[in-house]
Amino acid sequence: MAAQRGAARGATTAGAGSAAGASAPVVIVGGGFGGLACARRLGAAGVPTVLIDRQNYHLFVPLLYQVATAALSPADIAQPIRRILSRYPTVSVVLGEVVGVDAATKRVLLAGQAPLAYGKLILAAGSVCNYFGHDSWAEHAPCPRDLPDATLLRSRILLALEAAEASKDPRERAALLSFVVVGGGPTGVEMAGAIAELIRPALRRDFRAIDPGLARIVLVEAGSRLLAAFPEDLAEAAACGLEELGVEIRTGISVREISASGVDLADGARIDAATVVWGAGTRAAPAAAWLPGIETAAGGRLPVEPDLRLRGHDDLYVLGDLAMCLGEDGKPLPALAQVAKQQGEYLGRVLSKPLATGQAAAPFVFRNRGNAAIIGRNAAIFDFGKGRTLTGRKAWLLWALVHIYLLNGLERRFLVAAQWLVRYVTRQRGARLITARRLPAAGPPGD
Amino acid sequence: MAAQRGAARGATTAGAGSAAGASAPVVIVGGGFGGLACARRLGAAGVPTVLIDRQNYHLFVPLLYQVATAALSPADIAQPIRRILSRYPTVSVVLGEVVGVDAATKRVLLAGQAPLAYGKLILAAGSVCNYFGHDSWAEHAPCPRDLPDATLLRSRILLALEAAEASKDPRERAALLSFVVVGGGPTGVEMAGAIAELIRPALRRDFRAIDPGLARIVLVEAGSRLLAAFPEDLAEAAACGLEELGVEIRTGISVREISASGVDLADGARIDAATVVWGAGTRAAPAAAWLPGIETAAGGRLPVEPDLRLRGHDDLYVLGDLAMCLGEDGKPLPALAQVAKQQGEYLGRVLSKPLATGQAAAPFVFRNRGNAAIIGRNAAIFDFGKGRTLTGRKAWLLWALVHIYLLNGLERRFLVAAQWLVRYVTRQRGARLITARRLPAAGPPGD
Repeated sequence: MAAQRGAARGATTAGAGSAAGASAPVVIVGGGFGGLACARRLGAAGVPTVLIDRQNYHLFVPLLYQVATAALSPADIAQPIRRILSRYPTVSVVLGEVVGVDAATKRVLLAGQAPLAYGKLILAAGSVCNYFGHDSWAEHAPCPRDLPDATLLRSRILLALEAAEASKDPRERAALLSFVVVGGGPTGVEMAGAIAELIRPALRRDFRAIDPGLARIVLVEAGSRLLAAFPEDLAEAAACGLEELGVEIRTGISVREISASGVDLADGARIDAATVVWGAGTRAAPAAAWLPGIETAAGGRLPVEPDLRLRGHDDLYVLGDLAMCLGEDGKPLPALAQVAKQQGEYLGRVLSKPLATGQAAAPFVFRNRGNAAIIGRNAAIFDFGKGRTLTGRKAWLLWALVHIYLLNGLERRFLVAAQWLVRYVTRQRGARLITARRLPAAGPPGD
Repeated sequence: MAAQRGAARGATTAGAGSAAGASAPVVIVGGGFGGLACARRLGAAGVPTVLIDRQNYHLFVPLLYQVATAALSPADIAQPIRRILSRYPTVSVVLGEVVGVDAATKRVLLAGQAPLAYGKLILAAGSVCNYFGHDSWAEHAPCPRDLPDATLLRSRILLALEAAEASKDPRERAALLSFVVVGGGPTGVEMAGAIAELIRPALRRDFRAIDPGLARIVLVEAGSRLLAAFPEDLAEAAACGLEELGVEIRTGISVREISASGVDLADGARIDAATVVWGAGTRAAPAAAWLPGIETAAGGRLPVEPDLRLRGHDDLYVLGDLAMCLGEDGKPLPALAQVAKQQGEYLGRVLSKPLATGQAAAPFVFRNRGNAAIIGRNAAIFDFGKGRTLTGRKAWLLWALVHIYLLNGLERRFLVAAQWLVRYVTRQRGARLITARRLPAAGPPGD
C-alpha cells in the first residue's frame, strides 16, 4: 500500500522521469550510508522511490563509539530518515521490518504490513556483529553497532565504576575496574582509547574510594598486530598512542571464553573484568535468508556483478557491507561507509536513467578517500593508500573536520563540533548517563 | 561502609568544621534540586556528607517535556551528580536505592548494600506521578517525570505518526493522529503546546500520506480553567496561545477511563487516541514507608517544623516536594523546584554551623522568584506574585534565559542555548529518535 502511494505520488510529481519500471517504485532496504545516498540521487532525479528501515533514523555508525563512551548523545549521530529525505517529493519512507523478498512477483514482504511491490529492489541492509559462532558471548560482551548497544555499553562502563566505588573487596574492585576490548581493528582501537579517556579524568576527580591507578584497559587481538587493514607503521603509531593512554595491548592471542566475570585467553591466561566490549568483527546482515536458495560468499555477503546486480537476478541490486563486490585489484571491497556511499550514489545514477534493452551500466569503481582510526585526543592515523599517510595531531584534526563535514545537517555539525571543542579543552565527557539498569555481573551496586 | 569512608575522608580533609555529629556524616537522600543545593552548601563548608540517589544523574525536570517532544536530548538536561559535586572533597556520592530508615540506630538501609550511618538525615526524595488510584492508567498514559518515561513518550508520539502514515483505515489514522493530554497544570500545558509544535511542521514536510489537518491535540482539565495556580488573566493568555497552536481545550470535565485505544470522559464523550499523556498530578515519593508509623499529610507529604525538621524526630529533616511545609500565609508551599532549592540551601546553611544545645534555627522563609509556564515558541506566562505578571514573547525570552542560567555547567548552557536558537529559527526538532519499541496500541507499524 505504501508502495502504491509512493508510486502514485511519484507519477504525479515526477512526470516522465521514471526509469524504475512501469509503475512500481525503486525500493531500497536500509537507510545507512548506501541506501540513503541512493535515495537522495533517485529523489533528485524524481524517480518514485520507497526506502524501508527498521529504525526511524539514519545512524552515523563511525561515531557510535563516542556514544558508548559518553562523549556524544544519541541524537548527535542519529537523524530521522524522513527529515533527510523530506525535500524529495517522490521518495517515501516506511518504518518496517523486511522478512522476505518474493522475486517472482517482485514484492518485498514486511512484518505486520502489506507487501510492497517493487520495480527495482536495492538491498542495503548493512552488517551485524559477528561472534563467530559464540553467540552466547553477546550478552557479556556487547558490540557497539547500534544505539541500544552503545547506550548499554555506556551504562555498563559507568555502573562498573559505581560498583567499584562501593566495593570493599580489592579483587572485586580490580575486576570492576578492568575493561577488556576484544578485537584490534578500528572499532577495538577506538573503543579502547575512548574508554581510557573517559575513565581516567572521571576517576581522578569524581570518585573518592578508587583512583586511576587501579583501572586496567586491555585490548586483545588474535592477529600478530593491531589494525591489519592499515600499513604497519601506522599500526605501530596507533599502538604507541594507546600505550600512552595506558591501554595494555595483547596481540597474537585469541579469546577462548567470555563469561560474566571476564575473559579466558587461548594461552590459559585469565582477565577478571566486569566490562567486555566486542569489536572483533562483523558479518553481512542476514538478508540472504530473504531470498531462498541464494548463494552467499565469505561473511554472508551476496556476490554481485560489476554493476552491483545480484548474480542471477535482473531487478535486484546489493550494495555496501551486504555486497561482495570485487575491487579493481580483484579483492573484495572492504565493509566501509565510503564504499557503501559511493555504491549508493552509483546505483542512484544508474537507476535514474533508462537503459536501452540489453545495455549494461558501466561498472562501479571505488575511489579510496582515505581510511582513519582515532586513538584519542590529538592522535589518529590516516591512510590515503599508495603510501600516503598522516598521523598524530594533524590526522586527528583532519579526522574531526571530515567527520563534522560528513554529518547530516548544519545544526548537527555545529553541535558535534561544539561538544568536541569542549571535550578537547576540559577532557570531560558530557553524556555520562546510566540509562540501562543491566548491571555488570560482578558486584551490583544497587538494585 | 561508604558512610565510614565518607566520614573518614571528611575527617581528614575538612578538619574541625563538622557540625554533623560525632563521626557520622550528613546523609542526603535524593539528588534533585533540594538535595543537590544542600550538598553543595555542606560541601563548601567542609561538612562530611553523603548523597544517595537511585540514578547517577541530576535531572532538570522542568525541561523534561522538551525531551519527551524531541527538542532536547537526555544528556542536555541530565548531569552526573558526581561531576557536580566533585569539587567538594568531603562530599561522596552513592548510587543506591533506599529501602528504609532505622531512626533508633541512625542508619539508612539500602537495597543490596551495607547500611549507612548518619549524623543528620535529610530526605529529599521528591515526588512521583499520581494517578489517583487508577494505577492501571500508567501503562496507557505515561507521565513525563523521569528520563525513561520521557523517551518512551517521545517514541510513542513518533511511532503514532509512523503508524498513521502506514494506515489506510481513516478511523485508525484519526486515532493515531489524536493526542490527549490529561491535566491543565504547567506540565499538561507545556506538553500540549510542545506536541503541537513537534508534529505540525513534521507532518507538513516529512510525511506523504498524512497532513497537519488530520492531527488533533486535546487538553483535558477537570477544573473550571487551566493553570489553577496562576492568576486568571495569565491562564486565559495561555489558553489563547494553545488554541492558536491548534490545541483543543476541554475544561470542567474529568476523565473516567483511559485504555489503549483512548480516553472516556465523565460526560460520556470518547476520544479515540493512540497517545495519551498524563500530566494531572504528582504526590510525594513513598518515603513515608521508610519510617514505620510516620504521619503523612495530603499527597503523602511529611509534615515538618518551620526549620524543616520532621515532626517528632530530632536528626531527620525533610525538604522539597516530599515536605509539607507551611508558608508565611499558612498555606502549604507548592511542589516547585525553587522551593526545594531554597530549602536545600537553607538546610545546608543550618547544618554547617553547630547550634548551641536547645537553640533552634531561624525558620525557613520561601522567597517566590516567579512561576512560569511555556505555551510554545514565543509564548509563555510568568507570575511573580503580588499582581506582577509577564506574557508573550518577553515572558518566553525571560523563561529561556532563566532556564539556561539554571542549568549546571557552562557547556550544557551553551549547548541548550544553541539548540533552542536552531529550533526557534528552523521550527525543526533535532532529537526525533524512536528508541523504545513499545508501540502505540492502535495500529502497530512494524514488528
